Amino acid sequence: MINQVAIVGGTHGNEFTGVYLLKKWQKKPQLIARESFNTTTLFANPRAFEHNCRYIDCDLNRQFTQVELDDDNLSNYEQSRAKVINQQLGPKGDAKSDFIIDLHTTTSNMGPTLILPERGLFYRQLAAYVTERMPEVIVFLDDQDLHAKDHYFLSTIGTKSVLIEVGPVPQSVLRQDVFEQSEQMTHLILDFIELNNREQLPSLTPSFDAFRFVKSIKLPLDDNGERLGMVHNHVQDSDFNTPISKGTPIFRTFDGEDIYWQEDQTLYPAFINEAAYYDNNLAMSLLRKLSVDVQSGDESDIVVSE
Amino acid sequence: MINQVAIVGGTHGNEFTGVYLLKKWQKKPQLIARESFNTTTLFANPRAFEHNCRYIDCDLNRQFTQVELDDDNLSNYEQSRAKVINQQLGPKGDAKSDFIIDLHTTTSNMGPTLILPERGLFYRQLAAYVTERMPEVIVFLDDQDLHAKDHYFLSTIGTKSVLIEVGPVPQSVLRQDVFEQSEQMTHLILDFIELNNREQLPSLTPSFDAFRFVKSIKLPLDDNGERLGMVHNHVQDSDFNTPISKGTPIFRTFDGEDIYWQEDQTLYPAFINEAAYYDNNLAMSLLRKLSVDVQSGDESDIVVSE
Repeated sequence: MINQVAIVGGTHGNEFTGVYLLKKWQKKPQLIARESFNTTTLFANPRAFEHNCRYIDCDLNRQFTQVELDDDNLSNYEQSRAKVINQQLGPKGDAKSDFIIDLHTTTSNMGPTLILPERGLFYRQLAAYVTERMPEVIVFLDDQDLHAKDHYFLSTIGTKSVLIEVGPVPQSVLRQDVFEQSEQMTHLILDFIELNNREQLPSLTPSFDAFRFVKSIKLPLDDNGERLGMVHNHVQDSDFNTPISKGTPIFRTFDGEDIYWQEDQTLYPAFINEAAYYDNNLAMSLLRKLSVDVQSGDESDIVVSE
Repeated sequence: MINQVAIVGGTHGNEFTGVYLLKKWQKKPQLIARESFNTTTLFANPRAFEHNCRYIDCDLNRQFTQVELDDDNLSNYEQSRAKVINQQLGPKGDAKSDFIIDLHTTTSNMGPTLILPERGLFYRQLAAYVTERMPEVIVFLDDQDLHAKDHYFLSTIGTKSVLIEVGPVPQSVLRQDVFEQSEQMTHLILDFIELNNREQLPSLTPSFDAFRFVKSIKLPLDDNGERLGMVHNHVQDSDFNTPISKGTPIFRTFDGEDIYWQEDQTLYPAFINEAAYYDNNLAMSLLRKLSVDVQSGDESDIVVSE
């Protein structure tokens, strides 16, 4: 039974959509109220929003491992916010919040994406419910075999959680389409929790497609760590669409030469050219495409022959 | 005769395209060398680039009026950079640089845009030359009746100048298409200067289409200056395309209501939802569409009946 839901926005200060959705819901709390549970909202990083940047000292959404929450020497702005938020919505492992929805946006062409941080029937039913009602939603499985205590996402201080990740939208921009997709996904998740609490879930699609994170890849760099090129036009904007397989042109050097993917496994890209990952020279994430059986959890790879 | 050309990048620290083009040209100066003039490059705001932000203290590309350049009390980082750059490439009104190309990007869907800061046969011939060879280029006339000394753009310290403005690309991102369009435009401008210096201009198209800046408009705000809504989907991404006339849905409030344009004049939008203009709550610029006669400079409005 889920009694307490928290909706978090502004975890990254330059992702405006969540911040403005919170403002809307704070004025009209009936929009996120449901009968069987209580809903609260939290503006996670107001100071970064004021400064119109992702973070002040370090990425807030990387500060929520148990070890870091317990380390009183970690005292910069985001490390301090993490401890406060853990007290408000957690504490991690014994949380007041049965469910956390954390609202994010991306500069990548990912559409409305539902990121699930762990496995289980509840999550599979949630994904089935949302994708049936909003077929443009992509299910992104970020459910590595981590114990929750080792996961660094803010949302993992809740007993259960999801991230809503919608793009493309530049940092510091509101787009009507992204705003409305984020709102619709949030409402569907709240509806699902309500129906699940009441044991009134409708019959669901027997399976859904999803993408599971495999690894991130970096831009081509020289020996000094200077970038040599960019994501190739062939891949740009084709998040979840263009399969990356041996021979796919994946980078274009500044001198105009193409670099081809060398690995045998066919994977799908996401977070292509995400602005926030430039600090680390990350070019994109690569994912396996799967079909997931809702009841059993059985998975089968979806392989594309080109 | 143009003897000295300066190419400027990184005037805004989070517009990466110009910065990486400069790096390329500094390694391969032959790409921007031409016989009849000398070409130099300048990285205008390295500290903002290091911090991955548009500027440190204030927008560098607003600091170049004569009054501000002469005011020694204006001493923050960008105000200081402006004075140094004015010594390097100017001084304004008596410049070492006969021509400055300043490289910018935008988060708006403007494509490759050539911004002309003043009028004259030279500029009209330049626009004709570039658009004939790269038909996707939009000519943007930002040639208000300012004396150059009252213009605040960096480029206006040169005797002549243009801005290259290409989008859409999020801040802090490199895109192959935007990079290559910016490079191609720069090369065409250098080619034009070379041919003009040698008095070998080919015959040019007799006229070209252009857009002249009329005014900027703001997002809808409440009495406290809080935003009430967003640019409408009907207008989003349609820079230079969707005419704005009486009755056009132009904003969507957060509550889902449409706001319609009320003025009679039909104008075209650009810089729609540009991230950097959010500080001022600017929604977009509005422009007149014109046909410009290259030889005479005569202009005629292009009016669209819907």
